[in-house]
Amino acid sequence: MNYKIIFNTLGWVMNIEALCMVLPLICAIVYKEDVTVFLISIILCILFGVPLTLKTPKNKTMYAKEGFIIVALSWIAISIFGSVPFMISGIIPDFFGAFFETVSGFTTTGASVISDLSVVPKSVLFWRSFTHWIGGMGVLVFLVALLPLSGGNNMYLLKAESPGPSVSKLVPKVKSSAKLLYVIYIGLTLTQVILLLFGGMSVFEALTLTFGTAGTGGFGIVNSSIADYSSYVQIVCTVFMILFGIDFSVYYLILLRKFKDAIRSSEVRTYLAIITVSVILITSNCLSLYSTVGEAIKHSAFQVSSIITTTGFSSVDFNLWPEFSKTILVILMFIGACAGSTGGGMKVSRIIILVKSIVKEVKIAVHPRATHKITMNGRLVAHETIRATNVFMVSYFVIFFISLLIISIDNLSFTTNFTAVAATINNVGPGLDMVGPTANFSVYSSFSKVVLSLNMLLGRLEIFPLLTLFSPISWKK
Amino acid sequence: MNYKIIFNTLGWVMNIEALCMVLPLICAIVYKEDVTVFLISIILCILFGVPLTLKTPKNKTMYAKEGFIIVALSWIAISIFGSVPFMISGIIPDFFGAFFETVSGFTTTGASVISDLSVVPKSVLFWRSFTHWIGGMGVLVFLVALLPLSGGNNMYLLKAESPGPSVSKLVPKVKSSAKLLYVIYIGLTLTQVILLLFGGMSVFEALTLTFGTAGTGGFGIVNSSIADYSSYVQIVCTVFMILFGIDFSVYYLILLRKFKDAIRSSEVRTYLAIITVSVILITSNCLSLYSTVGEAIKHSAFQVSSIITTTGFSSVDFNLWPEFSKTILVILMFIGACAGSTGGGMKVSRIIILVKSIVKEVKIAVHPRATHKITMNGRLVAHETIRATNVFMVSYFVIFFISLLIISIDNLSFTTNFTAVAATINNVGPGLDMVGPTANFSVYSSFSKVVLSLNMLLGRLEIFPLLTLFSPISWKK
Repeated sequence: MNYKIIFNTLGWVMNIEALCMVLPLICAIVYKEDVTVFLISIILCILFGVPLTLKTPKNKTMYAKEGFIIVALSWIAISIFGSVPFMISGIIPDFFGAFFETVSGFTTTGASVISDLSVVPKSVLFWRSFTHWIGGMGVLVFLVALLPLSGGNNMYLLKAESPGPSVSKLVPKVKSSAKLLYVIYIGLTLTQVILLLFGGMSVFEALTLTFGTAGTGGFGIVNSSIADYSSYVQIVCTVFMILFGIDFSVYYLILLRKFKDAIRSSEVRTYLAIITVSVILITSNCLSLYSTVGEAIKHSAFQVSSIITTTGFSSVDFNLWPEFSKTILVILMFIGACAGSTGGGMKVSRIIILVKSIVKEVKIAVHPRATHKITMNGRLVAHETIRATNVFMVSYFVIFFISLLIISIDNLSFTTNFTAVAATINNVGPGLDMVGPTANFSVYSSFSKVVLSLNMLLGRLEIFPLLTLFSPISWKK
Repeated sequence: MNYKIIFNTLGWVMNIEALCMVLPLICAIVYKEDVTVFLISIILCILFGVPLTLKTPKNKTMYAKEGFIIVALSWIAISIFGSVPFMISGIIPDFFGAFFETVSGFTTTGASVISDLSVVPKSVLFWRSFTHWIGGMGVLVFLVALLPLSGGNNMYLLKAESPGPSVSKLVPKVKSSAKLLYVIYIGLTLTQVILLLFGGMSVFEALTLTFGTAGTGGFGIVNSSIADYSSYVQIVCTVFMILFGIDFSVYYLILLRKFKDAIRSSEVRTYLAIITVSVILITSNCLSLYSTVGEAIKHSAFQVSSIITTTGFSSVDFNLWPEFSKTILVILMFIGACAGSTGGGMKVSRIIILVKSIVKEVKIAVHPRATHKITMNGRLVAHETIRATNVFMVSYFVIFFISLLIISIDNLSFTTNFTAVAATINNVGPGLDMVGPTANFSVYSSFSKVVLSLNMLLGRLEIFPLLTLFSPISWKK
């Protein structure tokens, strides 16, 4: 284990967090709020980060193991330090609540323990939404893009942090890939901000709402989430949620004017097909609840996009919808967005691989002697990818049921517990029943909050980095 | 596709069903009930079965495909014909309800649509419980044991019908294996009957209760399930439920006096460990509900054994237990009993293989260049078994969520729908909320009943036989 490179990278991550906190600090100055909240937080990050980065390690070797452990430790560290503003501002005085909120932010979950947003200072709201934006594309990806960090093994960092069964390296060089990802990310973000400004929003509103959309996070800045905004704003959000749920390599192909290749992606096509079918089903199921068909389509499209991309905004209280519509939303939570997007869940490409492996198994039974291969977008899917995808799903459900069992100690309803775990492990945000869109996660005990925080991290980092960190196998000589 | 062998075997299965119906016919004669119910049913089976068996096919070749299709068709056929007594006796007049009840019987699920058992004739109750016993070990296994059916390819029938990731052939000859399985099955059944007779039960009560236990089915003959029986009877049932959930090859080893090999089975040890831990957890969680610790242990042991073996008897209304205990039961539903037993669920050995493949994946990340193998009971698990186990779990959850979505159209609660699917696909019987131990499945529409019936068949036959039957791939030239 190369400890030096692990701690050095961790230090850089903390420095970046300090840098990120400058933005809410500026926000506090602009709105004449207490600046000490973010000053103290920045100092804490620097006190931890700078000493670790003073000496550049000579041995820059990094393998999958180091990649996993760096990513897992970094995400835990930024969540601990990121929760300081919530604590010292007094908004969430207890550590476990503040930690939950911050993990929820960075992992782009959007589940909250704050019951009244109207009393939260704007700078804290800004930080809360900004964590979504940082976590959406990933802090290590940012690091790789910016710093002349290490040799050629940065790939493992990207691999550990990027969502999906196989990492989408846009160009041969890892550093350039990371840069390109951020360029696309910033481009899409700015476009949405401008469109929202056109809709009459203030810069603060447009920025925070866009951070929540871009990271597919879901933190709002008012108690009603998106419900009180204009139809224009809601439609802009619907479109951008869907856009941020698409594999970013598709945008790269569009930038290169390779439109044919862009529309060939079976993952994106399946993703859009699932959205369309879900909207049709929910619209027809909920028709009687709304005055016009247009209204029904608008709300079902918003909720479907919000849930499948695991954003978690709500334009209505979907907890009041009929069971069929609610069940569609629960299933969409698990499916999630495309790999290589900022969205969570199991990812559409994994679902495709899994369904194809079921078909393959039937084919083997029928024609045992023929060879059966799984392809995607015309290319063969590697055996390792299929195995890893299968094992991912298995570990996913094992973790799911263990978490469900632990939080059931709090004695809330089965629906509440089930959707709480589903909403956290898939980084969605709201669930149903007592953790529905108008409720929040403060009903859970501190212990359950830790479990659900771990679920969010496991979901965002796709299990294996944390499993590697906590597994004794990794630490044996 | 060898159609001739498929239809010939199907014919024999129907003849066996006619033979099985002689027992409830005798019961009707003894209790002076309407004998026409079973006379008509027997004639119908024979009218269908005998013509198909008149000519023995020359080509007896049978592969995995034929094995799967024979088993799938046989189970659908026995369920359709087995539902005739429920319909003509007027107990369940509609076909979908009667089909649900019969599928529930043969698949040893034990989910019922009958709301009042006190009005059901004894002969029908006998048939209802007897279907559990037939389905527990399997009707094709019985056929293979009895008839000089076909060449050497009977293995595929056993493979398709026996539960678990790999078939437990006790001895090299398939026919002898099938015979041995039935000898052990009958031996255990008789032991339980005798013990229950000692407890002061009538022959009718002892037989029906034992059928429900042996097949890990769960149909009772009174509305209160097992709650009104004596502690002695409840304890006998607890012990025998656990025994019938153990891999039958262990009993074969015990018969051969190979005790060392018998206790080496890591599946059985894990199974017993899960039971012990669950009983301890539930007992401590439910302590306040019962007057003595002994009472709490008795009820938690009964329910744990009933649910993990997927029997589904209840000695108390566990729907009233705290959420933690209920969640344990829901998880036990999925785990299920041992492979090669009469129990359902995913099977303990699959869980072991799945957990081991997660550990393997972490090991690969940490030591990418080393070779990592999965072993069980000291033997290497074949790559095909691991792949099939993974794909099994994936298809299992895909089917689970599709079913959940379809039955949610009936607009019952999420907990009801979730546990209804869990209780049927795992062949348990009762779920929670509106399908809890004191309720029944008559709340669902006919359409949902068909979906849940399919779930029971998919669970009992472990997905692939039905998938093969309904897959267009199987029928292409």
